[in-house]
Amino acid sequence: MRTEVVAIGTELLLGQITDTNSSWIGEQLALVGIDSLYQTKVGDNLDRMVATLSLALSRSDAVICCGGLGPTQDDITREAIAQVMGVALVADEQMEERIVAMFQSRGRRMPMNNLLQAQLPVGARFIAEQPGTAPGLLCPVEWAEDDGSLTPKVIYAVPGVPWEMKEMMTGTILPDLQQRAGISAVIASRTLRTWGESESALAEILHDRILELDSSGNPTLAFLASGMEGLKVRITAKGETPASVEAALADEELVIRDLLGSLVFGVDDDTMESVVLQMLKERGLTLGVAESLTGGMIGSRLSAIAGASSVLRGSIVSYASEVKFDLLEVPTGPVITEVAALAMALGAQRLLGSDVAISATGVAGPDSAEGHNPGTVCVAVVIGDPETTGSATTQTLQLPGGRTQVREFTVITLLGILRHELIRLDAAL
Amino acid sequence: MRTEVVAIGTELLLGQITDTNSSWIGEQLALVGIDSLYQTKVGDNLDRMVATLSLALSRSDAVICCGGLGPTQDDITREAIAQVMGVALVADEQMEERIVAMFQSRGRRMPMNNLLQAQLPVGARFIAEQPGTAPGLLCPVEWAEDDGSLTPKVIYAVPGVPWEMKEMMTGTILPDLQQRAGISAVIASRTLRTWGESESALAEILHDRILELDSSGNPTLAFLASGMEGLKVRITAKGETPASVEAALADEELVIRDLLGSLVFGVDDDTMESVVLQMLKERGLTLGVAESLTGGMIGSRLSAIAGASSVLRGSIVSYASEVKFDLLEVPTGPVITEVAALAMALGAQRLLGSDVAISATGVAGPDSAEGHNPGTVCVAVVIGDPETTGSATTQTLQLPGGRTQVREFTVITLLGILRHELIRLDAAL
Repeated sequence: MRTEVVAIGTELLLGQITDTNSSWIGEQLALVGIDSLYQTKVGDNLDRMVATLSLALSRSDAVICCGGLGPTQDDITREAIAQVMGVALVADEQMEERIVAMFQSRGRRMPMNNLLQAQLPVGARFIAEQPGTAPGLLCPVEWAEDDGSLTPKVIYAVPGVPWEMKEMMTGTILPDLQQRAGISAVIASRTLRTWGESESALAEILHDRILELDSSGNPTLAFLASGMEGLKVRITAKGETPASVEAALADEELVIRDLLGSLVFGVDDDTMESVVLQMLKERGLTLGVAESLTGGMIGSRLSAIAGASSVLRGSIVSYASEVKFDLLEVPTGPVITEVAALAMALGAQRLLGSDVAISATGVAGPDSAEGHNPGTVCVAVVIGDPETTGSATTQTLQLPGGRTQVREFTVITLLGILRHELIRLDAAL
Repeated sequence: MRTEVVAIGTELLLGQITDTNSSWIGEQLALVGIDSLYQTKVGDNLDRMVATLSLALSRSDAVICCGGLGPTQDDITREAIAQVMGVALVADEQMEERIVAMFQSRGRRMPMNNLLQAQLPVGARFIAEQPGTAPGLLCPVEWAEDDGSLTPKVIYAVPGVPWEMKEMMTGTILPDLQQRAGISAVIASRTLRTWGESESALAEILHDRILELDSSGNPTLAFLASGMEGLKVRITAKGETPASVEAALADEELVIRDLLGSLVFGVDDDTMESVVLQMLKERGLTLGVAESLTGGMIGSRLSAIAGASSVLRGSIVSYASEVKFDLLEVPTGPVITEVAALAMALGAQRLLGSDVAISATGVAGPDSAEGHNPGTVCVAVVIGDPETTGSATTQTLQLPGGRTQVREFTVITLLGILRHELIRLDAAL
């Protein structure tokens, strides 16, 4: 079952918009085991669209077109498909009424052009999901092979708006493709997010398990380095029912977690920030931050998560050394030291009135500072009162990369250390 | 002169990497006036690569392939091009020596595989720029038309690594394409960055000028909304010499600046942060920030710029209301008010010891707060001592979008207000 993706829009060719839809669709197809051998971008030109769709149908069984379903004159995907199918475009009254009703319910005036979106090639049907105004199309095609025989193929058309496209892909197109391909197997994946070891170190730890899986072929493992989002380990499993796949994923997750231990900080959409905020919330702890080279990025990443306010008190961005000395009461002297980092965290804890405090001071680059190369970063984590029942830990990191990468790696590494401290304290209780 | 882009790599089809090279290349081609009607992605498969390159050559005059030039078994772009050209691959001794020397100079052991990169199809030549180890290729092709006649065409091959690709495009491929196309014209563009009016309002202000330019056809204007990077107005001019194009761009920039006035905050790679930091630096002023809903993003964006430390003292991220009251001395009561914003800025000015202070407090969403809908943001700008010779200004904004967009628009809008205050003070002197 070969499927091609055709992304439609002159703005894509001109580089005004980067086509991310094709990548996403390609990933989804791969996950359900459908081959996708070509992806093409073509402009809003009827002849070239017809040629591109025809070529795609000649070498694949299904074509997914993205874009060109809007209400303007440029939006000619409907015409192009009708021409490839050799049929007329007709207006669908029910869809016309539905579009009119959509505008009415939002209290907006409907431009008459929008009724063009209710047209479809004879023999095609609308895709059930319609999150925006543009309906998607499912168009069966009887493709004439060179020897004159007819092969049943299909063209799907979805809007270029990513969330509309995704809803139609998940709800209708992927299941329809699987059915056409006779794929009764269910395929699903789960991503474990890790931090603390390199990709090659992870591969070494998982070496024996990967060999075992290679011989069975199911489930499979893949690695993906994703910067400050962590290093991802993706488990993909195939089975006959959703329940059996779910069970296979759960089993393999246990095996991998057993091997990687606390390197795994989250699953799927978890981020280090969301995980740490959740851990603090469960323990009833508030957090304060003192940051220097990150300039506010630690606070910004934490506060990007809705609901952060129940944990995050704030951050003191002490970019200038005097602010460290005067406000955070860091001892006068060099500021890229673990002593300074500890004083910063204690200062943030005091000024922000938080239970827990974390800090980072270092050299983002491009220039060196205090004799340290870019990438040298001192961090501290303080939990409770370190003089009594609490704890304080400091560390000096050597982070790779340029200014942006050093700042980003500081954020995830420091939050990762806080996570490990919280786990350690749990174990000590 | 039609040119196609072919991006090579199975990882692109599987969505493991998003192809941004094709978009960039498409934009560069458009800028020099070369049509690019198709862009294709194909996997690391010799037959499909040969088919894709042949199809591209049959309908275009030039093909730019990205990727597949590495030293591994998957990297078969060289083989595919040789097959399309109908020639053999040969090793180039000079290039072998060059690659060996590159590894030696970096003190790294060279895997023997890397010598594969010194191979090229007979009749092809290496591209002069070689910023990484992979050389690029320029391959002239005598294309056999259906009627048996031969048409001179060309295939370029560049690495998939963006900065290596860009250097080869700019240094060799674009000039070579222009020469082949007989384009003696020089084309260049300049982007004016604006903030403060919507795209439709800009189009209205520039309406008459756009009509004038439409009739002459040179230079041209285009708009591009780029979120917190501002709303861009791109001027593209064509001429016979670099000097004449430069002059045309400068003239048009003056016309547009005259119409848009202080809405224009920068040119090309300027950002609102870089512009405001530069203005403060020139005036010998330091900056302090007090932020709430942005959680550190204002400080983070400012400190992302190398050299920010000569201006930026720091930021007090008062995410919790108590931090606003206790640390910044905001009067107890509602915190989404201009009174609170002003108190926050004055508190930051005092605590951070800065000449200038800016602040933002508001509702990022998804929930409402203090009876205000998401998008309600109060900001303040304080310059010097407002009781004596300084100034203080506050404003309540209604920003569109979800949590992320509200936070991002707060950053650029607040910095934009600071910029206008600095301009106003200059005028008042």
